[in-house]
Amino acid sequence: MNANHLWLSQFADCLPEHLATPMDVALAELAAFPDLPVALRLQEDLGDQWRWEQSGTMEQLTGGMTGLLYGTYARIFAHLARQPMPSGVQSPAYPLRMLNCWDNLSGNVERGYAGRSLFFENGALAYDPARIRMLARLLASCSVNVLCINNVNVIQEAQRLMEDLLPDVAELAALFRPFGIRLMLSCDFALPVRHGLSTADPLDPQVQKFWNDRAEKVWHAVPDLVGFVVKADSEHRPGPFTYGRTHADGANMLARAVKPFGGTIVWRAFVYNCQQDWRDTMTDRPKAAYDTYMPLDGSFDDNVILQIKNGPFDFQVREPVSPALLSMQHTHLAMELQLTQEYTGQQIDIFSMPPMWEEIFHDLSPARICSIAAVANIGRDSCIVGHPFAAVNLYGYGCIAWNPCTKPEEIIDTWCTLTYPSLCPEKHDLLKNLLLRSRRVYEKYTAPLSLCWMVVPSIHYGPSPEGYEFTPWGTFNRADRNAVGVDRTSKGTGYVLQYPAPLRDLYENPRTCPDVLLLFFHRMRYDTILSDGRTLIQRIYDDHFEGYEEVEAMEQDLYQLAPLLPPEDREQVCSRIILQKANAREWRDVVNTFFHRLSGIEDVHNRKIYD
Amino acid sequence: MNANHLWLSQFADCLPEHLATPMDVALAELAAFPDLPVALRLQEDLGDQWRWEQSGTMEQLTGGMTGLLYGTYARIFAHLARQPMPSGVQSPAYPLRMLNCWDNLSGNVERGYAGRSLFFENGALAYDPARIRMLARLLASCSVNVLCINNVNVIQEAQRLMEDLLPDVAELAALFRPFGIRLMLSCDFALPVRHGLSTADPLDPQVQKFWNDRAEKVWHAVPDLVGFVVKADSEHRPGPFTYGRTHADGANMLARAVKPFGGTIVWRAFVYNCQQDWRDTMTDRPKAAYDTYMPLDGSFDDNVILQIKNGPFDFQVREPVSPALLSMQHTHLAMELQLTQEYTGQQIDIFSMPPMWEEIFHDLSPARICSIAAVANIGRDSCIVGHPFAAVNLYGYGCIAWNPCTKPEEIIDTWCTLTYPSLCPEKHDLLKNLLLRSRRVYEKYTAPLSLCWMVVPSIHYGPSPEGYEFTPWGTFNRADRNAVGVDRTSKGTGYVLQYPAPLRDLYENPRTCPDVLLLFFHRMRYDTILSDGRTLIQRIYDDHFEGYEEVEAMEQDLYQLAPLLPPEDREQVCSRIILQKANAREWRDVVNTFFHRLSGIEDVHNRKIYD
Repeated sequence: MNANHLWLSQFADCLPEHLATPMDVALAELAAFPDLPVALRLQEDLGDQWRWEQSGTMEQLTGGMTGLLYGTYARIFAHLARQPMPSGVQSPAYPLRMLNCWDNLSGNVERGYAGRSLFFENGALAYDPARIRMLARLLASCSVNVLCINNVNVIQEAQRLMEDLLPDVAELAALFRPFGIRLMLSCDFALPVRHGLSTADPLDPQVQKFWNDRAEKVWHAVPDLVGFVVKADSEHRPGPFTYGRTHADGANMLARAVKPFGGTIVWRAFVYNCQQDWRDTMTDRPKAAYDTYMPLDGSFDDNVILQIKNGPFDFQVREPVSPALLSMQHTHLAMELQLTQEYTGQQIDIFSMPPMWEEIFHDLSPARICSIAAVANIGRDSCIVGHPFAAVNLYGYGCIAWNPCTKPEEIIDTWCTLTYPSLCPEKHDLLKNLLLRSRRVYEKYTAPLSLCWMVVPSIHYGPSPEGYEFTPWGTFNRADRNAVGVDRTSKGTGYVLQYPAPLRDLYENPRTCPDVLLLFFHRMRYDTILSDGRTLIQRIYDDHFEGYEEVEAMEQDLYQLAPLLPPEDREQVCSRIILQKANAREWRDVVNTFFHRLSGIEDVHNRKIYD
Repeated sequence: MNANHLWLSQFADCLPEHLATPMDVALAELAAFPDLPVALRLQEDLGDQWRWEQSGTMEQLTGGMTGLLYGTYARIFAHLARQPMPSGVQSPAYPLRMLNCWDNLSGNVERGYAGRSLFFENGALAYDPARIRMLARLLASCSVNVLCINNVNVIQEAQRLMEDLLPDVAELAALFRPFGIRLMLSCDFALPVRHGLSTADPLDPQVQKFWNDRAEKVWHAVPDLVGFVVKADSEHRPGPFTYGRTHADGANMLARAVKPFGGTIVWRAFVYNCQQDWRDTMTDRPKAAYDTYMPLDGSFDDNVILQIKNGPFDFQVREPVSPALLSMQHTHLAMELQLTQEYTGQQIDIFSMPPMWEEIFHDLSPARICSIAAVANIGRDSCIVGHPFAAVNLYGYGCIAWNPCTKPEEIIDTWCTLTYPSLCPEKHDLLKNLLLRSRRVYEKYTAPLSLCWMVVPSIHYGPSPEGYEFTPWGTFNRADRNAVGVDRTSKGTGYVLQYPAPLRDLYENPRTCPDVLLLFFHRMRYDTILSDGRTLIQRIYDDHFEGYEEVEAMEQDLYQLAPLLPPEDREQVCSRIILQKANAREWRDVVNTFFHRLSGIEDVHNRKIYD
């Protein structure tokens, strides 16, 4: 087995280099499974869709050009996992299943925990074509079809991707094309200024002309480019606010420039005051997206997609669904997830995301969004994703991008089977259960009751209870000797009022608000009795102690599994669980000590809390 | 006036380029003051010493080669400041008056707040000779005679200073030589390993041979080099501990290598456990220097100087004198001060150090040390020291290096006169008083009662009450809802026992311990009544409120002074006081809120403390 293959571990080592179309790829993949008597029938208008039929010993797969490829992977996976094939036409929930890479041209990956960039180094494109093809196979096999290759924070030199580096972008696009994957570019709203204009005002005719010309050049080089991703007016990025314009003004100006080429503008709704005075208790960062974008609902052009993070903060371990996603009726919305484990263990701690996504889609009807995006967790590490088990998040993302109702158990079960086919049923279940509970375990020792943001600033790994307390980022817990949390109910910041009923009522009342979101919505005294009869402070202590113990149990499970894993995976998994355990211990002790110092309340079980 | 001239503002703009000796420099400086009828008489054996005599209208200055230079500057300063000249032979307290630059070859200055390195850029020596000569004049004028040009953290490429860059070092040394200034180099204890040896063990004959050979090469290039500065086994630097050897083993091995050339090893006593577990309450970082070096007292060679920071921590706003400085009887000691304002305002906030040094020498007899060193505060900024007023620390350091008993009032008074000769007496006193009180003001809003280390980690600027609380750096305040501070008495960590009587008894008893050091030595409840009748918590609140108000008063003083300052100084001073005021406000509010949240105790004066 080749470690690079991840869940394609049983697939052919290499595909022929010069495959021209997704159908060619499908045929090449099938060639490695001669037991599968599958005939492909192309029906162009089906696009991504496919249909599998069996008559006697023969099988037929009908689909559009990309549909055939997706159907082929589905067929091979079903074969390897001994699962039945679905009947009827299979269609993706979302036409654009996007992966956003936060790669800089320097080769550094912002918030990347899987090594340096697969695409860039030293200010230029620099990649191993074989590795790119392997990545493309992995993505296509789980239905990802859009790849934004550069960081949404477009640092100076990355502007060249739309300038002299365009031919290189075109070459890279050609490598992905046979796999049904099209590229996007993150663009800098202030690009016109770099080209000598005095402004980037979206209503300025010269600016509009600049973008029209630029779009023409870009699409001339890469005719099937999906479009641009834009992070504007966010965390010191330039944007329309600089010129007194709305985000609709900004997005629509770009949308009109790319429309002649079929292009789309993906506009990130990540705007908040990142210079908030901590003394200011009225401003509440989670309210920002809704406050900024609801008034603009209906004013975006058809080829604009507003990309909104799943929660109102920033990819914390647990957040309620962003109210902007729930409420905007007349705007094309994409939800943005984050695979790279910025706040969720940095691919050291195991954190399997499908259970989290299931919760999101419990509150968010899949039909409310038209597209889905995720920040990638990939890099040059030999296993591509830093921690071998982090691959389940990349694979799983593809699964829910195709069908958001896919069950976490199913995703993880299939991933385990495909990745480690030689595990016996007992060990397979051991791994599956470990992955299924990993997010809850991480939550317990890092952010129980949604006590989020207690991380070391800038690094975002390891505990720092007051790390963000007096900073300008709008991320406070305001813990004092009696209570902790921010009151976001109608009597507090009013954030809860951004939710439609019945969520609004559910969250407003501390008795109905789920425990896991309690301190997101409520400020509570340490001695408050929660639904299970325990006090708030006891629950904080208990979760931290339990979280650590559960990591210890995971470690024991892994030592059983390790001998059965491929050597390279074994080494990564074993070395990282030691770090995870040390991390969990640090979280447990720092946070418990922090609250014990504040509250003076003892643990009812007399476990060790340091002074 | 030339801004580069600082306290030499009334001196000749340039000196002739090719002056060969300190006497030449003295004559050239005197040439600009034709009113001074001073005859120089060289008496080689006097060295740094000088004697001034007057008979009628004629004056005679007798001195060694460097003594004549120092006497000349003293004579001109007395003339400009209208002060009398001292009678009798003038001798420096310390033969080596050292300035340590923490300059990296990249051009970056570690903890530098005055611009990039004056000596290096891009991995090589790179400087403006005119600027170097100006620096040399400034240093010589206040008696500094040793300059270590590179960072004690010898980052990889800096090792080349003892290798292929030696000819360049020699050229730089030649620029300083006419000013009586000799160079030192920081060296990497692991250098032999870089040259292919398998060890840097100081008892290994091959290692000894390596250093003997290296010393020969170095002194061949720079025959009057003073020696090497070594930071070993400290903050991840290599050292003798790696090989199970003592610091005496390490220092003596180097000392023997440099001895044939008259070289000296300055060995920094900055060893502590920088990976301390915060749970560990027995380890107490301030104890480290004494514990490490007292057992070695008497085992260092004659040409080793142990350089010990003034306090047991690391250049905090206020620390008691390092007990190692007070107690080691059979070792040559140097005290290390820090001019660069790492924890003391980063040359944004005004912090004039002479009052602090007077306190140090109140507890430390000047005769206990044989040399003195200071970490430089200089760089490429046009005023050399970042904030024009920070020059008083460079000038003042030279004054106390010559005579540690010089009064702060005298230093600051003379500096004001020399730097801003056109101020009227009233404004002169305004500036002098502002500088004199500046340290106390800074202390009030940042670290009253020695509540130190509440800074933003790594940056060391701005408040972060728990920034260092759960880190491995051994710097804790352990504040909880009832009390704050670390008990360092005989009942606590026992640190106080490292002091000789009577300091030991003074610090042991909270009733005799000076308030300003209270929380350094004692853990105290917030409701403890202090000597002035106020509670501890009230004192914390009061100092922070007063500190901010005193910055406001300083700002008012500066607005009176500003129109009278040279334009460049005016701009720097006015822009920085705004930053200082914002900083003081942040400190006041963050720290008061932190303690109010913890203690729940209200300010008796009902001033605004944020929730």
